[in-house]
Amino acid sequence: MRGIVPQKVKGFRDITSTQNALRELIISKATEVYRRFGFSRFDTPILEYAESLGKYLPDADSVAQGVYSFKNPEQEPIFDTNGKEMRDAENRVLMENHYVAMRYDLTAPLARVYAESLWQQHLRGEIQGKTNLFRRFQYGPVFRFEAKLDPGRFREFWQMDFDTVGAEDVSTDAENCIILSQALENIGLKRGTYLIKINNRKIVNGLLSYSGITDKEQETAVMRVIDKLDKIGIQAVAQELGKGRVDEVSGAQIPGLGLDTEHVDLIINYIKDFEQRDTRKNVIAKLKSKPAFENETYKEGVAELEKIDTILADLGYNEEVAILDPGMVRGLGYYTGPIYEIESLQTYKDEKGRERRVGSICGGGRYDGLVENLLGVKVPATGASIGVDRLAELLTLTGQVPEQIDGPVIIIVFDDELMPLYQKTAMQLRAAGINTEIYYGAKRGLKHQMSYADKNNCTLAIIIGGDEAAKGVATVKNLKLGKQLAATVTDKNEWKAKVQKEISLENLAEEVKKMLQ
Amino acid sequence: MRGIVPQKVKGFRDITSTQNALRELIISKATEVYRRFGFSRFDTPILEYAESLGKYLPDADSVAQGVYSFKNPEQEPIFDTNGKEMRDAENRVLMENHYVAMRYDLTAPLARVYAESLWQQHLRGEIQGKTNLFRRFQYGPVFRFEAKLDPGRFREFWQMDFDTVGAEDVSTDAENCIILSQALENIGLKRGTYLIKINNRKIVNGLLSYSGITDKEQETAVMRVIDKLDKIGIQAVAQELGKGRVDEVSGAQIPGLGLDTEHVDLIINYIKDFEQRDTRKNVIAKLKSKPAFENETYKEGVAELEKIDTILADLGYNEEVAILDPGMVRGLGYYTGPIYEIESLQTYKDEKGRERRVGSICGGGRYDGLVENLLGVKVPATGASIGVDRLAELLTLTGQVPEQIDGPVIIIVFDDELMPLYQKTAMQLRAAGINTEIYYGAKRGLKHQMSYADKNNCTLAIIIGGDEAAKGVATVKNLKLGKQLAATVTDKNEWKAKVQKEISLENLAEEVKKMLQ
Repeated sequence: MRGIVPQKVKGFRDITSTQNALRELIISKATEVYRRFGFSRFDTPILEYAESLGKYLPDADSVAQGVYSFKNPEQEPIFDTNGKEMRDAENRVLMENHYVAMRYDLTAPLARVYAESLWQQHLRGEIQGKTNLFRRFQYGPVFRFEAKLDPGRFREFWQMDFDTVGAEDVSTDAENCIILSQALENIGLKRGTYLIKINNRKIVNGLLSYSGITDKEQETAVMRVIDKLDKIGIQAVAQELGKGRVDEVSGAQIPGLGLDTEHVDLIINYIKDFEQRDTRKNVIAKLKSKPAFENETYKEGVAELEKIDTILADLGYNEEVAILDPGMVRGLGYYTGPIYEIESLQTYKDEKGRERRVGSICGGGRYDGLVENLLGVKVPATGASIGVDRLAELLTLTGQVPEQIDGPVIIIVFDDELMPLYQKTAMQLRAAGINTEIYYGAKRGLKHQMSYADKNNCTLAIIIGGDEAAKGVATVKNLKLGKQLAATVTDKNEWKAKVQKEISLENLAEEVKKMLQ
Repeated sequence: MRGIVPQKVKGFRDITSTQNALRELIISKATEVYRRFGFSRFDTPILEYAESLGKYLPDADSVAQGVYSFKNPEQEPIFDTNGKEMRDAENRVLMENHYVAMRYDLTAPLARVYAESLWQQHLRGEIQGKTNLFRRFQYGPVFRFEAKLDPGRFREFWQMDFDTVGAEDVSTDAENCIILSQALENIGLKRGTYLIKINNRKIVNGLLSYSGITDKEQETAVMRVIDKLDKIGIQAVAQELGKGRVDEVSGAQIPGLGLDTEHVDLIINYIKDFEQRDTRKNVIAKLKSKPAFENETYKEGVAELEKIDTILADLGYNEEVAILDPGMVRGLGYYTGPIYEIESLQTYKDEKGRERRVGSICGGGRYDGLVENLLGVKVPATGASIGVDRLAELLTLTGQVPEQIDGPVIIIVFDDELMPLYQKTAMQLRAAGINTEIYYGAKRGLKHQMSYADKNNCTLAIIIGGDEAAKGVATVKNLKLGKQLAATVTDKNEWKAKVQKEISLENLAEEVKKMLQ
């Protein structure tokens, strides 16, 4: 009794060759654009000290929540604030097991990278004035332990980030939106099928502050509730800001933040005010007309949005591509300034025939406090991310996947005695640049071999039996053409004549190359 | 007091853009060859149930040893052998927290993939006769918790595997050696700078069995000791097979396996017999001349080596590329037949001027029991792996790394007022396919900007101040050429004349393109 049958860990999945091809497409096309804007690739490990990652997830009240973390098997020295190992009375280095965590995004580890370098500079006495510029892109898996897993969602998924650390100018935020847009279009999305929604955390923070909510934690809690707007609707948001609510589906009691009616109304009215899509100029005018515009932070936020609007307009990114959306807050705890999200506008039909959307495929924003939280040094930073797997899902569901990739040419194994000939033939084809597989399966029936070739999308099958070997020829079956003709050519002999050819072994590589073109 | 300064988890590292470029080179060149032999890419997750991975590591007496494993935060149902959820007296599903582990290689997860598919076939009543063929390649990080970490070794490192499951013919093993050889040469290694060493576990197993050691666990333990030969020398191997030894450096007592002198001598004599490099034909003749040749398993092993030798010779892979090495066993617990390892013969000088070698850069072999151990169904399987990071290290240490990659063109930021012009200029260059970065750093001094450009290997710097903007021109500095000329052109004005150019903004993209060629 094993207690466990062979299976993937719940919430994890294998990635087939077709899915990999799609990931590769997205990554290579986005890499092109990221490099075009001057970013270079820099990778961080899968594991980090849990303390380095902080607790910035939506709905995360503790590091453990949402994060795969565990006790590091190895003990590490404890350091004091000067970076010195702490020692006990007998001068032994104090050790403890820190917690390590699988990264839940690519941004928090980047803050660690930068803080680590700053710390080294600090120990060398080099920190003075403003900090250095660092730009990098990175892609790979991130891990979230979401207790309730929606169908089609996974606990390991790929993101592709680019970030600029050490830049305070919000021009970089405008540029981030343009990079995301160019990356999506390079991948194949058409303009008008996606929408960049831009806001500024300073505006929402300023609004809350203006109305008397100044506690940082409460601020973050309010953001997380507003972030659920698309999911739960405005009435439920109002309830969660106030006294809480009972979930209709599960019957669970969801506690509220306990804001009084006045504050709840202020936030809800603000959201309602900007529900209707409007031009960027009109949204800015409306933001300026609010009483909260007295608040310095709010005002700063509006000015930054105005600057971003100007740059986008200047470079040809109009309202078809990017709008201002003051009700959008993004759930992550670390944003401090401009934030942006890209929504796909394309619809697909689900298995019940209902029109659906994939939703958000990219996101990003400014996080000036992330390094500060680790190290106490203020470092401006901003970046954005493509949800690689979410985008792959969108491309698949809306039928925008590239054509199926050709498999190799397959050499059918008829006779073990002929194996040396099969191997020589395969090597000749490979030397000519042709992907070629010898069928090595234990199931030897021709039917098995052909069904394997079919499943693996093999382009041609090369058949050499005893007779062919004696004559120095091979029978070559064009499987790809065969599939295409199957619909139109119904006469079996005609089909065979078109699809099957006898070719001399001497010219095989040359002829196969022609057939593959 | 944080107790932890910003740092990487011990044994983990960040990967710079140069290191990434090297990884990308290795992966793309090996991918070409793997595809040429008909493999397609299939990925498994980072996490697996610890029970699925088994305990096959060298020196691993338990799953925990050498593996990052932890209790899954989520409870899972317990299954019976029919794949049904087990229930208690009140019909509630029995749940438990399984242990999960970060994969320590890419082979054990593959066995899970195949076993999972077989299990589904079993539940549908489809398993009959021989099993299906499955071929895939995969690359990515694997994780080993080695308590003692040698310098330059890491706990997260990349491997690149290809495997054939469902093929019993050892022709596949010969092919595996050829694939590794072609991959290394496609990456840039010259023939003669590496050596494939081939052996067969059946020969060593047969030898042990012939001498009366038939216990499976003891067999594995003996293999692990022999595997240390290169590291600890033949005398220490003899001691560890017998009564144990005291480590010279650490003074630690290393327990022995407790074999009697007769058995220890048999094994040691066997190893000594094959210490000298010899032709494949001679090695086979010598293997046949041993008394253990009476043993069926031993005999089978020799016959398989003979078959592999014939195929290699037939396809032009002579003794310069591949030898037989009966003393090589490989430490992993799951091998059952032919095994192979590739050693780099290239030397480099370490910091103390000593000649050194990187050692083993690839390895592989047949593991017919891996799926059987999970599921009880015998499935033949074989594969091999390139140690991506080890190979990258070799290329770096022996000076075979490709030239440094060009960074982007950089637009120097002189004047914030001119930012819209900088942005338009950058967009024009990008539209022409030129990687272009605007310097967004907070440190604005020209010295800072130029040192940033230098550090990031920028090719050209584009300087537009107020005067230039008024004239509609840019000063373009060819940084790459500047570096090249610095050694030969000592006159500052001459150097400047060659390196610096004033170009009209209208023709900028065109001219920059020319300068980059």
